[in-house]
Amino acid sequence: MAKSLDELIEALSSLPGIGKKSAARLAFHLLKRPVEDSEEIAKRIVNARRNLKPCALCGNLTESERCEICDDDSRDKSIICVVEEPSDVSAIESAGSFHGGYHVLGGALSPLDGIGPDELNIESLKRRIKEGAKEIILATNPSTEGEATAAYISSILKNDAVKISRIARGLPAGGSLEFADKATLARAMENRTPLE
Amino acid sequence: MAKSLDELIEALSSLPGIGKKSAARLAFHLLKRPVEDSEEIAKRIVNARRNLKPCALCGNLTESERCEICDDDSRDKSIICVVEEPSDVSAIESAGSFHGGYHVLGGALSPLDGIGPDELNIESLKRRIKEGAKEIILATNPSTEGEATAAYISSILKNDAVKISRIARGLPAGGSLEFADKATLARAMENRTPLE
Repeated sequence: MAKSLDELIEALSSLPGIGKKSAARLAFHLLKRPVEDSEEIAKRIVNARRNLKPCALCGNLTESERCEICDDDSRDKSIICVVEEPSDVSAIESAGSFHGGYHVLGGALSPLDGIGPDELNIESLKRRIKEGAKEIILATNPSTEGEATAAYISSILKNDAVKISRIARGLPAGGSLEFADKATLARAMENRTPLE
Repeated sequence: MAKSLDELIEALSSLPGIGKKSAARLAFHLLKRPVEDSEEIAKRIVNARRNLKPCALCGNLTESERCEICDDDSRDKSIICVVEEPSDVSAIESAGSFHGGYHVLGGALSPLDGIGPDELNIESLKRRIKEGAKEIILATNPSTEGEATAAYISSILKNDAVKISRIARGLPAGGSLEFADKATLARAMENRTPLE
């Protein structure tokens, strides 16, 4: 195979969820498109990587000093939703039901990968609580690392005058009991909500 | 969402098989990688698109005048495998059982999309037959367009002293009768091969 085609396929297959076959398919697609199209995609990768940086306040991705959510005065910043990554902010935003602020930790505790509390944006979260946040929603992933991170943050904040909650874990909407794993079912039973 | 992030997601979701959600996932992944990594991917897209062009002889993608297969004297160029796209060449090459030359048509006949015989590399195929090719394997896709293209090429070559065959259509290896569609099953019965 031609060298630059090989190199492109190799680069694309380094992306998550893209195996060798999909990478080849994407590469051949990029080669069939007009030159300007492929160059536009390349330009946008470079631009995004260069222009986006963490928001000085919450750690979300932004092109300015502060992100659009922190800059939006209509949002209630006394409630802070704590997440692992900027992608989690956009997931929660797409649900459209949360109108507070965010705090992006930049990951989750993972001693095996050398990620301890100092590697996460936890100090700045404590500062925001001192500066007046009233409620914290821990929305780290329902994984081992995410649960450990939520437990850790809740333990270091327990002396602050702040309400702390953890997002609910249970059966996903549209899911089916039959296909749910044991841990999810156990959580769903444990955290059952009373009907009025 | 930040503008350059939005633009990147939009560009990535224009790729085949990449929906809005996967595009967001890829974008956030690209943003987490070191700057040089993301720029390397962008560079490879541009390089591949700029450097690769059709081989002057067979139409396969190459960085030189002729592709590696046409340049390889150990391959028997008297047998030509006719395919629709360069990606089909790499698919057949990866099977490793064919040792002749290729001819890339650049698509398949599709009157509704305005693709007639003049839009495909058929003249150059005729020229290669006049110059001494002895056998043609029609390996266009087993789709309506691919079958029509194979039928068309076989009809215009019927007066030439060349052996013409069509790749076999039948049950895929590892497949199961139960899940095969009607057309495939009909073909598999029709084209059954005698056992010695």
